[in-house]
Amino acid sequence: MRIINSLSEMQHYVQEQKKQGLSIGFVPTMGYLHEGHLQLMDAAREENDLLVASIFVNPLQFGPNEDFEQYPRDEEEDIRKARERGVDVLFFPHVHDMYPSSLSIVMKVERRADVLCGRSREGHFDGVVTVLAKLFHLVQPNKAYFGNKDAQQVAVVDALIEDYNFPIELRALNTVREKDGLAKSSRNVYLSKEEREEAPYIYEALHYGKRRLQEEHVSSRQVKDEVSRFITSHTRGKIDYVDILSYPQLERVEEYSGQIIIAAAVYFSKARLIDNIIFEVRS
Amino acid sequence: MRIINSLSEMQHYVQEQKKQGLSIGFVPTMGYLHEGHLQLMDAAREENDLLVASIFVNPLQFGPNEDFEQYPRDEEEDIRKARERGVDVLFFPHVHDMYPSSLSIVMKVERRADVLCGRSREGHFDGVVTVLAKLFHLVQPNKAYFGNKDAQQVAVVDALIEDYNFPIELRALNTVREKDGLAKSSRNVYLSKEEREEAPYIYEALHYGKRRLQEEHVSSRQVKDEVSRFITSHTRGKIDYVDILSYPQLERVEEYSGQIIIAAAVYFSKARLIDNIIFEVRS
Repeated sequence: MRIINSLSEMQHYVQEQKKQGLSIGFVPTMGYLHEGHLQLMDAAREENDLLVASIFVNPLQFGPNEDFEQYPRDEEEDIRKARERGVDVLFFPHVHDMYPSSLSIVMKVERRADVLCGRSREGHFDGVVTVLAKLFHLVQPNKAYFGNKDAQQVAVVDALIEDYNFPIELRALNTVREKDGLAKSSRNVYLSKEEREEAPYIYEALHYGKRRLQEEHVSSRQVKDEVSRFITSHTRGKIDYVDILSYPQLERVEEYSGQIIIAAAVYFSKARLIDNIIFEVRS
Repeated sequence: MRIINSLSEMQHYVQEQKKQGLSIGFVPTMGYLHEGHLQLMDAAREENDLLVASIFVNPLQFGPNEDFEQYPRDEEEDIRKARERGVDVLFFPHVHDMYPSSLSIVMKVERRADVLCGRSREGHFDGVVTVLAKLFHLVQPNKAYFGNKDAQQVAVVDALIEDYNFPIELRALNTVREKDGLAKSSRNVYLSKEEREEAPYIYEALHYGKRRLQEEHVSSRQVKDEVSRFITSHTRGKIDYVDILSYPQLERVEEYSGQIIIAAAVYFSKARLIDNIIFEVRS
């Protein structure tokens, strides 16, 4: 496995590979790799000639009161896991190379961003699309891999690729879960023992909501309230949001048909957890 | 010469060529090709395996009171000229394919844009970078060619490529001029006979300003006034701006050293003409 820090070296490397007709699968991450990331790598490994993964904790997508400094990092362990998973190139850019000065041209996400996580994380998705546009140009993948746990991120990346005609196929894979249902996340390490035991109820609550939505004469307002109560009665978490939207448009609709998402974000003492279920509603 | 309208066909075509290791030179235009465009094509022809030119009058870069509808078009003649100049692919996308719906993610130019043409054309450069980001992804050139007549556009494209790490080399070529010094422009056809005779005085005024700037104890305020007077006394044009800035940063500076630009925009009855000179100031 090759480790690349330099932007120009990364760009040069992929251009050489592409000249030979090799396809590139790309897994962008913020590191602290868990099984969710590794399964994205497995899929990318399977579907492409070359597998490039990046580790970059992107300051632009963290708000001033968020956990950029505290975001968990373990470079050595990440390198070991990536190597084991067959990554060909691990791209580790430095912040001062990615953002040598403030940008002259900014990207703003104007749709799909003012709901769910975007509502309480102003500018978060602007930071996400900015770093992804940069990474996409540096790595020039044929396919890019994301986990559906960050379903809103997937919806925004879908818009990025569509709006700007990136020559990239978006591959969104299922959320990887612990045995008890908790969605795998780098932030799970910040849960106390008690919180960790309660956390799987988030997923259970979403499942309950999904079942209720399939019933007739149940409003989405009602289901949201029930899901929220389910979470607060089973955990000490504080609800950030519970919402039900069309997917991937992330719009509020009265009559549900087609794909919808039911999603929740819950604050625990040192971590904010998110989870969701995307499914078809019978019309 | 192949003519391509379809976005996916364009993207597919270049991906096949790149797999064979061929380099692509790209000349994006709004059509109504003149010698300025054709010389960009000559340079691109010379420096790359394949030459792709695009013709797309981009509605996004025209303001509501600007000349989008009236912008001159001559598809047949453009095709003839492009073929003659050795263009391999002429890309002619349709507006409804480029902008099937309004964008979810917008690009905003926050520097280099609020001076010169950007000042009186709000949103113009947002539209320019948006369409170029799209075209760059559709054509995936190794080198992209622009004329220095649109010097502010070159400065903004330079920022676009730098900020977002596009794997593209920017090639900015000298302004091509008529024998009497008038910068070639698609909009010159809208000059009356008298205006056409007066228009070369814009370039002459800029040259006068350049000479004055090389003298000592002359303020840029003074030079701007003199250049403006030079233009209004020799033409019936109305000054939009005359300005002197660092290049490509396009910032106002007190002490000039390094590259600077002296630029003017002048309204005639049916056309607004721009011109500039970029040069090194002895410090």
